[in-house]
Amino acid sequence: MKTIAVLGAGMVGKAIALDLARQHQVISADINSDNLKVLDHPNIKTVQADLSKSKSIQQIISKADLVVGAVPGFMGFTTLQSVIEAKKDVVDISFFPEDPFELNVLAKKNDVVAIMDCGVAPGMDNILLAYHARTMQVESFTCVVGGLPFLRVKPFEYKAPFSPADVIEEYTRPARIVVNGKMIIKPALSEVEEMSFDEIGTLEAFNSDGLRSLVKTMKHVPNMKEKTLRYPGHARLMDALRNMGFFSKEEITVHGKKIAPLDVTSALFFPKWKYQAGEDEFTVMRITIDGKQNGKSKMIQYDLLDRYNHETKTSSMARTTGYTCTATANLILNGLYKKKGIHPPEHVGENEKCVQFILGYLRDRGVIYHKTEK
Amino acid sequence: MKTIAVLGAGMVGKAIALDLARQHQVISADINSDNLKVLDHPNIKTVQADLSKSKSIQQIISKADLVVGAVPGFMGFTTLQSVIEAKKDVVDISFFPEDPFELNVLAKKNDVVAIMDCGVAPGMDNILLAYHARTMQVESFTCVVGGLPFLRVKPFEYKAPFSPADVIEEYTRPARIVVNGKMIIKPALSEVEEMSFDEIGTLEAFNSDGLRSLVKTMKHVPNMKEKTLRYPGHARLMDALRNMGFFSKEEITVHGKKIAPLDVTSALFFPKWKYQAGEDEFTVMRITIDGKQNGKSKMIQYDLLDRYNHETKTSSMARTTGYTCTATANLILNGLYKKKGIHPPEHVGENEKCVQFILGYLRDRGVIYHKTEK
Repeated sequence: MKTIAVLGAGMVGKAIALDLARQHQVISADINSDNLKVLDHPNIKTVQADLSKSKSIQQIISKADLVVGAVPGFMGFTTLQSVIEAKKDVVDISFFPEDPFELNVLAKKNDVVAIMDCGVAPGMDNILLAYHARTMQVESFTCVVGGLPFLRVKPFEYKAPFSPADVIEEYTRPARIVVNGKMIIKPALSEVEEMSFDEIGTLEAFNSDGLRSLVKTMKHVPNMKEKTLRYPGHARLMDALRNMGFFSKEEITVHGKKIAPLDVTSALFFPKWKYQAGEDEFTVMRITIDGKQNGKSKMIQYDLLDRYNHETKTSSMARTTGYTCTATANLILNGLYKKKGIHPPEHVGENEKCVQFILGYLRDRGVIYHKTEK
Repeated sequence: MKTIAVLGAGMVGKAIALDLARQHQVISADINSDNLKVLDHPNIKTVQADLSKSKSIQQIISKADLVVGAVPGFMGFTTLQSVIEAKKDVVDISFFPEDPFELNVLAKKNDVVAIMDCGVAPGMDNILLAYHARTMQVESFTCVVGGLPFLRVKPFEYKAPFSPADVIEEYTRPARIVVNGKMIIKPALSEVEEMSFDEIGTLEAFNSDGLRSLVKTMKHVPNMKEKTLRYPGHARLMDALRNMGFFSKEEITVHGKKIAPLDVTSALFFPKWKYQAGEDEFTVMRITIDGKQNGKSKMIQYDLLDRYNHETKTSSMARTTGYTCTATANLILNGLYKKKGIHPPEHVGENEKCVQFILGYLRDRGVIYHKTEK
């Protein structure tokens, strides 16, 4: 039995702590005591603490064998840095915007294994691409992914598992995609296309900035794109709002008051986009890898459909993201992955044993990647 | 040659002043001197004045034979009252929300002819319904009407001839319609249906609160509705914004500042929905009157399509609204209509000579109502 410190007890952090507590001692830390209340488990010790302070982190993790970073994105990078400075192995899912490789030299110097972006997407898509890129010449990689409510209520037919501002960020940040070996920038919400999924029906997919580290690490794959899935019609509505300026962070003056339209939009969206307790939702993902193996064309597709778990009251987003992270944490604790330095999930995917371990770990929890091959 | 005072020199007020100046002396008054600048015509005298002050109005109209009310809706009722108190005949197009019949006793006492809502819709639709209701038993009356830019630019494919807040009012005020002899209330933007128009193509029509006085005066017509026309898809976008609270006048608190979302929305819409100088736009209207005449089924349809006039730089909204108003003003000056009191346009429509005069007056200006009969 090992000791793992989980920093952050939000929706995903909670699911991570509870999953790890099945086999390990867990220290779960969050600034919000309400988040910690539900973590009533003999193997979990909760600590209320301000994780924006490096000293707090150092104290909490001092006795841990491994650390999981599950804080909000804006404080993810500094948290990861604190953990590496404390010479602890770490798996991170905070999806921070900074370049993680800036911490690479420090991580190697401190003899630390640090894996970031270790969720469902980014995360599993990186792992599966790298896994197949070992044995085939990949010509094109596409990942479409989305989390949606089962109940479709017009006009938006959407609810957000995290803050509306973070969702809106996906609708505004330009999307990096790779076409014929060149990185190009497309507007978010562009190139809307319809796609159908078993048990779900027709959804729409549009460009979003989801490739992240792959743009850097997978330069030998000439075509790569990531798209977000929503019910059809959502992108047009969001495009209209964006076009009109509702997502702008630049302040305008209204009756003498300076205000950023995005703040008004977030305030209006928050109550409307909030999931009710126990509300049915799902995560759907399709990964397509096209290319050649031994001179022959080959197409591999992975399909994931994961639903809210009513028994454990765990959302599909928490399950698919959190369990990829806990699988990877166990991988490090088991000594299956021990490369020092900063590693994106595609580095883990290069190792056959690691990939099989993760897929098996997820399968045990009902998170199943259906593979088809042509 | 008579003298006519035109109160308000906005988009429609200007077109009214210029049209009347072809035959009459005109006094054109507005608080904004920029609005008055373009009225450079030997028969027009301009007066900069605050028309919210009854005294200003009394002075301006003292020598007029007739007054036209073309002020913004919110000050329309008090302006009309001031004119009636000054014992002047008046035609009004301010489309104020108050009940005009509250001024009926005063108008009769002061020996004044006062016709309100005298534009294209309300206005011409009321006139044409009443005209045919004289000789047939009308079972159903439908008016669909809209003003649109020729250039369709996504996402909204719309521009506003007046302030966005006034357009948004059409999207929020519940629509009164008459079904089987009963007045019922439907949400604005509801019952969206597609309809096609010559030279324009397919548009969508949705409920808006346009029947106004007809609900009261045409109790013998068992089915009446008015719908607004837009390019397809507009209603869903507007419904989404309304649903999310962007049209709400109730203040919310954002970062400690109290703000009404509608004010933010109006500020964002204003620059986006503004017509460029000389931009092509059109007004389209279809009036359908179904019923029986001498025991036989009869259907009468009027179609109007009017375009921006590049020669006179007059928008179709100003043409179709303003020239109905100036036709009616001439009707009163010619002694064709002389009933004292407050009159909605349907009262004018009961008089064959008046209707023929108005249709001819409009035809002379290129505003043509195509009639088809089945």
